[in-house]
Amino acid sequence: MLEEMLQKVANGELSPAEAKEKLATFENLGFAKVDHHRKKRQGFPEVIFGEGKEASQIIDISRAMMMKKDNILVTRVSDLKAKEIVKQLPDFQYDHTSRTLCMKNSDEMSLTKGYIAILCAGTSDLPVAEEAAKTAEAYGVEVRRFYDIGVAGIHRLFAHIDEIREATSSVVVAGMEGALPSVVGGLVSHPIIAVPTSVGYGANFQGISALLTMLNSCASGISVVNIDNGFGGAYNAVMIHRIANQTLHK
Amino acid sequence: MLEEMLQKVANGELSPAEAKEKLATFENLGFAKVDHHRKKRQGFPEVIFGEGKEASQIIDISRAMMMKKDNILVTRVSDLKAKEIVKQLPDFQYDHTSRTLCMKNSDEMSLTKGYIAILCAGTSDLPVAEEAAKTAEAYGVEVRRFYDIGVAGIHRLFAHIDEIREATSSVVVAGMEGALPSVVGGLVSHPIIAVPTSVGYGANFQGISALLTMLNSCASGISVVNIDNGFGGAYNAVMIHRIANQTLHK
Amino acid sequence: MLEEMLQKVANGELSPAEAKEKLATFENLGFAKVDHHRKKRQGFPEVIFGEGKEASQIIDISRAMMMKKDNILVTRVSDLKAKEIVKQLPDFQYDHTSRTLCMKNSDEMSLTKGYIAILCAGTSDLPVAEEAAKTAEAYGVEVRRFYDIGVAGIHRLFAHIDEIREATSSVVVAGMEGALPSVVGGLVSHPIIAVPTSVGYGANFQGISALLTMLNSCASGISVVNIDNGFGGAYNAVMIHRIANQTLHK
Amino acid sequence: MLEEMLQKVANGELSPAEAKEKLATFENLGFAKVDHHRKKRQGFPEVIFGEGKEASQIIDISRAMMMKKDNILVTRVSDLKAKEIVKQLPDFQYDHTSRTLCMKNSDEMSLTKGYIAILCAGTSDLPVAEEAAKTAEAYGVEVRRFYDIGVAGIHRLFAHIDEIREATSSVVVAGMEGALPSVVGGLVSHPIIAVPTSVGYGANFQGISALLTMLNSCASGISVVNIDNGFGGAYNAVMIHRIANQTLHK
Amino acid sequence: MLEEMLQKVANGELSPAEAKEKLATFENLGFAKVDHHRKKRQGFPEVIFGEGKEASQIIDISRAMMMKKDNILVTRVSDLKAKEIVKQLPDFQYDHTSRTLCMKNSDEMSLTKGYIAILCAGTSDLPVAEEAAKTAEAYGVEVRRFYDIGVAGIHRLFAHIDEIREATSSVVVAGMEGALPSVVGGLVSHPIIAVPTSVGYGANFQGISALLTMLNSCASGISVVNIDNGFGGAYNAVMIHRIANQTLHK
Amino acid sequence: MLEEMLQKVANGELSPAEAKEKLATFENLGFAKVDHHRKKRQGFPEVIFGEGKEASQIIDISRAMMMKKDNILVTRVSDLKAKEIVKQLPDFQYDHTSRTLCMKNSDEMSLTKGYIAILCAGTSDLPVAEEAAKTAEAYGVEVRRFYDIGVAGIHRLFAHIDEIREATSSVVVAGMEGALPSVVGGLVSHPIIAVPTSVGYGANFQGISALLTMLNSCASGISVVNIDNGFGGAYNAVMIHRIANQTLHK
Amino acid sequence: MLEEMLQKVANGELSPAEAKEKLATFENLGFAKVDHHRKKRQGFPEVIFGEGKEASQIIDISRAMMMKKDNILVTRVSDLKAKEIVKQLPDFQYDHTSRTLCMKNSDEMSLTKGYIAILCAGTSDLPVAEEAAKTAEAYGVEVRRFYDIGVAGIHRLFAHIDEIREATSSVVVAGMEGALPSVVGGLVSHPIIAVPTSVGYGANFQGISALLTMLNSCASGISVVNIDNGFGGAYNAVMIHRIANQTLHK
Amino acid sequence: MLEEMLQKVANGELSPAEAKEKLATFENLGFAKVDHHRKKRQGFPEVIFGEGKEASQIIDISRAMMMKKDNILVTRVSDLKAKEIVKQLPDFQYDHTSRTLCMKNSDEMSLTKGYIAILCAGTSDLPVAEEAAKTAEAYGVEVRRFYDIGVAGIHRLFAHIDEIREATSSVVVAGMEGALPSVVGGLVSHPIIAVPTSVGYGANFQGISALLTMLNSCASGISVVNIDNGFGGAYNAVMIHRIANQTLHK
Repeated sequence: MLEEMLQKVANGELSPAEAKEKLATFENLGFAKVDHHRKKRQGFPEVIFGEGKEASQIIDISRAMMMKKDNILVTRVSDLKAKEIVKQLPDFQYDHTSRTLCMKNSDEMSLTKGYIAILCAGTSDLPVAEEAAKTAEAYGVEVRRFYDIGVAGIHRLFAHIDEIREATSSVVVAGMEGALPSVVGGLVSHPIIAVPTSVGYGANFQGISALLTMLNSCASGISVVNIDNGFGGAYNAVMIHRIANQTLHK
Repeated sequence: MLEEMLQKVANGELSPAEAKEKLATFENLGFAKVDHHRKKRQGFPEVIFGEGKEASQIIDISRAMMMKKDNILVTRVSDLKAKEIVKQLPDFQYDHTSRTLCMKNSDEMSLTKGYIAILCAGTSDLPVAEEAAKTAEAYGVEVRRFYDIGVAGIHRLFAHIDEIREATSSVVVAGMEGALPSVVGGLVSHPIIAVPTSVGYGANFQGISALLTMLNSCASGISVVNIDNGFGGAYNAVMIHRIANQTLHK
Repeated sequence: MLEEMLQKVANGELSPAEAKEKLATFENLGFAKVDHHRKKRQGFPEVIFGEGKEASQIIDISRAMMMKKDNILVTRVSDLKAKEIVKQLPDFQYDHTSRTLCMKNSDEMSLTKGYIAILCAGTSDLPVAEEAAKTAEAYGVEVRRFYDIGVAGIHRLFAHIDEIREATSSVVVAGMEGALPSVVGGLVSHPIIAVPTSVGYGANFQGISALLTMLNSCASGISVVNIDNGFGGAYNAVMIHRIANQTLHK
Repeated sequence: MLEEMLQKVANGELSPAEAKEKLATFENLGFAKVDHHRKKRQGFPEVIFGEGKEASQIIDISRAMMMKKDNILVTRVSDLKAKEIVKQLPDFQYDHTSRTLCMKNSDEMSLTKGYIAILCAGTSDLPVAEEAAKTAEAYGVEVRRFYDIGVAGIHRLFAHIDEIREATSSVVVAGMEGALPSVVGGLVSHPIIAVPTSVGYGANFQGISALLTMLNSCASGISVVNIDNGFGGAYNAVMIHRIANQTLHK
Repeated sequence: MLEEMLQKVANGELSPAEAKEKLATFENLGFAKVDHHRKKRQGFPEVIFGEGKEASQIIDISRAMMMKKDNILVTRVSDLKAKEIVKQLPDFQYDHTSRTLCMKNSDEMSLTKGYIAILCAGTSDLPVAEEAAKTAEAYGVEVRRFYDIGVAGIHRLFAHIDEIREATSSVVVAGMEGALPSVVGGLVSHPIIAVPTSVGYGANFQGISALLTMLNSCASGISVVNIDNGFGGAYNAVMIHRIANQTLHK
Repeated sequence: MLEEMLQKVANGELSPAEAKEKLATFENLGFAKVDHHRKKRQGFPEVIFGEGKEASQIIDISRAMMMKKDNILVTRVSDLKAKEIVKQLPDFQYDHTSRTLCMKNSDEMSLTKGYIAILCAGTSDLPVAEEAAKTAEAYGVEVRRFYDIGVAGIHRLFAHIDEIREATSSVVVAGMEGALPSVVGGLVSHPIIAVPTSVGYGANFQGISALLTMLNSCASGISVVNIDNGFGGAYNAVMIHRIANQTLHK
Repeated sequence: MLEEMLQKVANGELSPAEAKEKLATFENLGFAKVDHHRKKRQGFPEVIFGEGKEASQIIDISRAMMMKKDNILVTRVSDLKAKEIVKQLPDFQYDHTSRTLCMKNSDEMSLTKGYIAILCAGTSDLPVAEEAAKTAEAYGVEVRRFYDIGVAGIHRLFAHIDEIREATSSVVVAGMEGALPSVVGGLVSHPIIAVPTSVGYGANFQGISALLTMLNSCASGISVVNIDNGFGGAYNAVMIHRIANQTLHK
Repeated sequence: MLEEMLQKVANGELSPAEAKEKLATFENLGFAKVDHHRKKRQGFPEVIFGEGKEASQIIDISRAMMMKKDNILVTRVSDLKAKEIVKQLPDFQYDHTSRTLCMKNSDEMSLTKGYIAILCAGTSDLPVAEEAAKTAEAYGVEVRRFYDIGVAGIHRLFAHIDEIREATSSVVVAGMEGALPSVVGGLVSHPIIAVPTSVGYGANFQGISALLTMLNSCASGISVVNIDNGFGGAYNAVMIHRIANQTLHK
């Protein structure tokens, strides 16, 4: 693509100044694919990390996106902040548990085959699990939820294991000792994205215990994202899901 | 499958004792799929974690596997131990850098489409990167290596970015500050498995610095495995690669 | 028990579908013994971890339990939350110090022999010690309290050592430097469950100091539970106490 | 007992000087019960922590014990040191895996009812598991071993769960992510002593990962001893086992 | 003293029951010297650690002490709590900076020779330094204050060094990098008690930085107490000061 | 200078008492250069660290400075406290983002050549970046801001790299994984002062992740200041900038 | 420069393919300035980090550099490895203390004005201090050494303070409590690069204590590099020194 | 003293140049008191920290000291190094346990009243305890040793408590859980210097567990030195002992 552009310069189809600007903004250099796939592919949401942003900032960014007909997902939004935003932008749907705001501006969805399994160990892990679920759904992916199936009552996991196995990948959310991904990892053959949560107390250290457990898992096929990062867990699963919905991309 | 078995018991095709044994070993309960896919699918290697095992133990396990015509990969084998093993089992190929032993007993390979990109930041990350590469190759997957492209000389990365983008996934290996996955994550749109290494000194803390960097990456689409876990990084990539080589598994 | 069930299927006494359901819920597989002993044995309490649950959730769960005539213990309940719950369910007794709610729905008690000793080092460890005491009492076990007997005034411990020795086990609660279990461990011959508390300041690190002290104790016969986990400490002691009240279980 | 002694002083049966010496050595004050039960009850071993002691020191201590006809257990003895000791004291049996020396000088055993279950997750946890097993056996307790049943292949655990359940307690040894006690804790109803091991690499931090997992277990009935402390795990189990073999001690 | 008491029993001057009680409370056994010196020596204060105690508790304890004519020092008292206490016990003097309450019920003072130097590095260390100063003064010791003489402006220290040198000991309070004790340690020849404070931000970690600095000091003659433990720093200095005021105690 | 003063004493131009006072205050000994350059060189601001100081204290210190016609910068001032101060001293300008108060009392500025580049990775790093910017500006140095150019969208950095290169030094502010200084360090040839911020969540540990990344950077020419220390970052840059504005100082 | 190149393409002076290659390698894009200044400016050394590289690798890299007439500095070379290298490349000078190899292939030096001060606290910090010194000297900068002037004997520092003040910057190397930079920072007005060393024991934690001290310094004008990173400390100082030797670079 | 010197300059008894030199070396400024008391007071040893110094360096330093008739103590000397040194300087006495070399060149001793108590918890703490003992003895102070009296067998402590109480201070050495100082602190009324040791394993973390225990002690009158710092513990005790041997110093 770069050579093509340079050829145009040689041919006089593109002025050096124009080419420089393109290179500078990397629009055509191929460096900007991320931006590209975020902004250009219809049906994919823009995601705004809401924590630390004021309501007014979120409203401004959202308005800019609405003009491009993007779907919009805002994560880490408190009830209070959400209320303020929804008053201005009533098309947003707020979900209390996952603390997400979602707005659908486009129906184009392509990831229709299969589903992602989202598991969590205890009811207190729900906010993180639901952040993951809402994220995947915002990308147009079907989610199946398997909640409250911690390893201390392992029969609860077994009752659902067949359905979990059929997913394209699993996002496994767990706090406290964080052992669920290890057990699931021994029972399924697709990739597992493990999400430690800060749920627990004492020597849990705000999720470090679960994080270390997951990094040290003796099961293969498990990779880990940051503590409480439900969005990140789902984002990785969606990337894998897209591969499952595509032939090999060129 | 469980109902089917119980039906056979009802029909008298299976004795209760036989059914019990099957349930006990979980061969047919569906719980044992992992074992199943490891042992039954030809062409897939058994992987032996060599660290902490004596040469004689590795030889014994390998001999058992050779009888099943499995490909065999042994990781974390020192030069000395390898020498001892190869003397007994001369079909093993030892690779000094990755510290792996490999033996090919089967040619059936199915993951022939596309390739995995393995990147590393510095030359000292080579042993971990090569453990990843040898692992993926043992699974029959083509690997393309992009080594010594750390962020302090970022033009080296850009020179290869197009080829990296075409991979089904990237395994990004980095020690010291571990920033490479973040930069790559902003430039590609496939899943990245980040592998922190214990390379560095001082406040590196045997890889913790790189691990934290990767967990905290501001780029999306990055998940992390344990420090120096080249095998784990590649295993996750192979799982994704298999999805890219299949239609959706049922 | 499994073979028996399968025999019934073979005999036609149980349909395959019925058997499958039983296996799925694990009621008869033997996996669910924990559930079994919790739910079926009269007089044993259900325990609800109150932290992070809303008053309405605790009320709902409690109502379901009340129908089964279970005793109920709720731990980690703030004054405010307790007030709200008691307004709806006036049979609950709230204890401010231990932050527990307790409701007696059954009188069947079997653990009547002997007592558990609960020791604490300082008055600030009282909430954790009392959580332990209330837990053991909810299980129908007699508790003897030995409070404020920290090692810096060791004669206070000696004044009670004979009575402590006669217990079936000791739950020893201590914050700050956490040295009490070590001293007690050298003076008694029954098992000691050590509970570190987050009481202290500065280099105490919310209980890590006490936790490490207990794990490193040079006295034998000491095992440790999580920081501030009074419930866990008592639960372990009750399990031992049950053994002391039974002949060997079959 | 104290009053009795003072009465004798009042009666002139005991001189003040004699009484003072007794108080000073605490032989009759009741403080010295630990020593008492260690030294006086036949059949119980003296245990020597071998690490950091020179062969000659171990030999000296052992000789003193042999004169009292005590059974002797020495833990943490390297092959080399063991060789040196056995040359002098050929009645010692050395066990390479558990690194223990054992000498039987007495046959009196009383803990003959039931057994302790010792579980370990992986083969690399064997040395710690065997230290636990040898310890329990030195105390005259039957041990049943359930090795290599880590959570990543959970069917292996289920194949043995009934036999594990019948033990008086379980010592559960696990390194890496240390999840095994949580799973076992959900399946049995006796006390579990969890022993984290330093087996693993990278973010395992010499056993901290497993230790935290165990302290944060969401299963009840689990208490924890220090990293690699197989002796401590078994010692706690033996104390519980003794209770199961006794009526309530007075 | 013990022998003497036993002699009295032998002589019939003391009944065995009386002797037992004395031994039980350790009044005469010599174990209770600490209690002894605290309670019996007039002029010495009782110290109450106010943190975590309610106003009513502090009032109750204080009243008990007032009857014995003890001086009373209460540390870690918030403004609010102090107000509540002073309303009930108007003889208490509250000091806002050091957060201490002080009540003088006795004039007997014996530590009149010399003084203790209390140094602090910055103005934010004042509350801890003043807790130390008020403590020493409550014990009747003269204090000289040398505040705001941190190492980044070392001439401020030099201006006072002669007066500091004449003290019986120094309590050196410092947060942030905590380097002041090292510098002072190289300039004086009396014992230095170093008190790290939690003053700072970022990589200060609530005083750990200063704590480590002080423990690692390359100057000799420095010992350290817990973070923010102004009381403890002064208590150690007072003990040394008492030695300086006495001939060698017998 | 010292010799000169002593010569004056010898000549009788200075009395021993006067000399002693001078030595004591170090005004002429050369030790007090810092004070000297702070107080005497017109146009340089006095900087007050506002955190932990009460409004009244800041007002008092400021008034003293105003009399000397110093420029004044107060850092870490909350909105509330600022309001209180500005009411008394209306010449102060408050900046909400950087939380700084600034007052210009002198126009003498000498650092007019060139500029300092201040970069930050994300919008949440703005408060720290602006604290740096306001600090440099208070010292009379031109600042150019390059904000929101994190490594996950590296083309944003490249668009500005030429202008960054022309600065005398860069202050690079980054939270989360903190990789920006490494990338910049590979692209420019002037000194980089890296400022980690506490922005992030989970395994970020209040800025430790970014701090470690920066300390371990594989790029040369990077030095680091404390977490969130925007002032410190700028102060170092100003010192370098002053060198660039001077010939070599004597 | 980019526009210029594109203009050449437009003019036909450069083929698109040639331009692409140039862009790919970034030789002319301006991105490669670091490489540029390293490779092109005569008299500047290439620096090889010797740790983890084998002698043969160092020899190969050195030979390539020798052909370009670069000066060469190799850091972290053990005596043994150095011997092996010098046998092949006898032009290398090995320095045992700093563990550096140095080879002069060019005399062009431009940084002739002024000097850098290198201070260290104790004699055990010498290897790191000398790594810094050799690095600066390899860049052609005069170094003045002020060794063994730790804060516990602060008069040793004062004896040299005037000469230190005249340097363009100071590299201050300290282990143990690492307080030296704070004291120096209060006495000089040029930038200080602080280098913590891993010298010490106990709670020193391989240099963390010194690192934290330096990051938390209450003196302004101090920035920090990684533990034991003498090279990095000097590199930063050289960058500042170059500014002092230049007029403002364009 | 300073004024006196200046007076001499004014009187012409001292030239300005001479005065300057004196000020520079601080001999008369009073800054050098530490050096002064070390070098000038006969009978006091010079102490050399032997770790990290080569035998030849220790020999050189010792020879210089021998000429001044100082007593010499060298700490942290391995057997091998000691052998080498003693061969050259046969007046040195080497003690294997404490790893100290000692040479007596002077008999003047003044600290003859009373003794220091050195306690240690276990036999593995002996090297640190003996380093403390040898240090105190080198300063001419009588030492009484109370070894192997850990809290798990507390009667061993009580047997010696009266003799411990009569000491001027106690140095209490303990590894593992480090609880001994807390218990002793409750029984004596003189200052306690606590020395944590790195003895232990697992969650002991090379002495951090013991260090934290000691810092968090609930007993008053305890201060702490660095891990394994037997020398430092004794040095503090000697300083206190000197006060006990003097009247108040002027």
